[in-house]
Amino acid sequence: MSSEAKTTEQVPMKQKVLSENQRIAEELRERYRKSGVLVLNIISSPGSGKTALLEKTLASFDKGTRVAVLTGDLQTDNDARRLAQYGFPVQQIVTGGTCHLDGKMIEKHLAAWNLDDLDLLIIENVGNLVCPSSYDLGEAAKIVLLSVTEGEDKPLKYPSIFFKSELAVITKTDLLPYVPFDIEKAEAFARQVHPGMEIVRASVMTAGGMEGWMGWLKGKMKAS
Amino acid sequence: MSSEAKTTEQVPMKQKVLSENQRIAEELRERYRKSGVLVLNIISSPGSGKTALLEKTLASFDKGTRVAVLTGDLQTDNDARRLAQYGFPVQQIVTGGTCHLDGKMIEKHLAAWNLDDLDLLIIENVGNLVCPSSYDLGEAAKIVLLSVTEGEDKPLKYPSIFFKSELAVITKTDLLPYVPFDIEKAEAFARQVHPGMEIVRASVMTAGGMEGWMGWLKGKMKAS
Repeated sequence: MSSEAKTTEQVPMKQKVLSENQRIAEELRERYRKSGVLVLNIISSPGSGKTALLEKTLASFDKGTRVAVLTGDLQTDNDARRLAQYGFPVQQIVTGGTCHLDGKMIEKHLAAWNLDDLDLLIIENVGNLVCPSSYDLGEAAKIVLLSVTEGEDKPLKYPSIFFKSELAVITKTDLLPYVPFDIEKAEAFARQVHPGMEIVRASVMTAGGMEGWMGWLKGKMKAS
Repeated sequence: MSSEAKTTEQVPMKQKVLSENQRIAEELRERYRKSGVLVLNIISSPGSGKTALLEKTLASFDKGTRVAVLTGDLQTDNDARRLAQYGFPVQQIVTGGTCHLDGKMIEKHLAAWNLDDLDLLIIENVGNLVCPSSYDLGEAAKIVLLSVTEGEDKPLKYPSIFFKSELAVITKTDLLPYVPFDIEKAEAFARQVHPGMEIVRASVMTAGGMEGWMGWLKGKMKAS
């Protein structure tokens, strides 16, 4: 994607950064493959409910599940503290001013863990619908969350992340009665950008609200 | 703000881009001053309600109000079409892949308008809590929106934009009964990052929900 804002020097510089990231991502992907760990990269706007979805997900796992989480934010370790209470390994990545995670950050934080001890590694990216879509972290799949409190045209406005994500999770569906959000339209827009995209609806507040997401996740874990 | 992700070459490049932007921003600021136009730069996550707030704002203005809007998105002119129906000049800035507006984009789109014909220019930035905070557009004030459907710790996680914004607007307060959002805590966090920050609460769905915001805006227009 091009932009009128980029200088002639900025473009090769960004390409250099991205190709260096890609090199690290391929190394990571190979390490994940060797250790047989499924790695998922979860991306959304700030406040779409990534951490809440992960809290419910971790709470639903048996204590013996071999899962770990890396969670990214510009500042604070609030999310890591929220997620750590479920008893699985969690690390916070504080990016400073950077609007996305990259391969180097993942590599550095994985040094503390033995990947052979894991079946599932969930990466919660920085809250941002733009920058994280350009940085491969070696994951098996990107997952994008879209909350029903946002506009249903977000897939059209932020096409890159919807195109690159295997799954869209439409979150906070318990709020549908109170917001002007047309969920069929949102799903149609997502599939306009990404034909055949898998989409599930989720609510962490409602009984049964996790079924679509957990079904997808368990299917993915079985297949990996 | 530093990041472990930056290469040694990336930092001077980013500084160069930012200092070139700053030069353009100062020229814009001087043009705004000469024409006596108040320029506001509105920033938030995707889906926090920037466009909805602007729709209600434009709808409340007398037809003779000398106001115009520039609205930024990665893709689509959906927002410009929503805003244009109120009869004031509106232009969409499509950034392609870029996660923020910059001075050059503003300069280019202002070529179509005579600033002397305006008292108020509202810039609706790209939905993103990170990148837009670094790019001065010559505005008199930045305004950050935070919706009650997002976590109340967003000011701590995205401190730069809360520190740089003169006003925080807490939006979608009509949803407070249905979400686990502690508004006093959110306001305290905003003031922890930015002591003395002005904060108003807004709901475009509720009678009286626009009063705090419109009061601030009219005060600002009178003072400028």
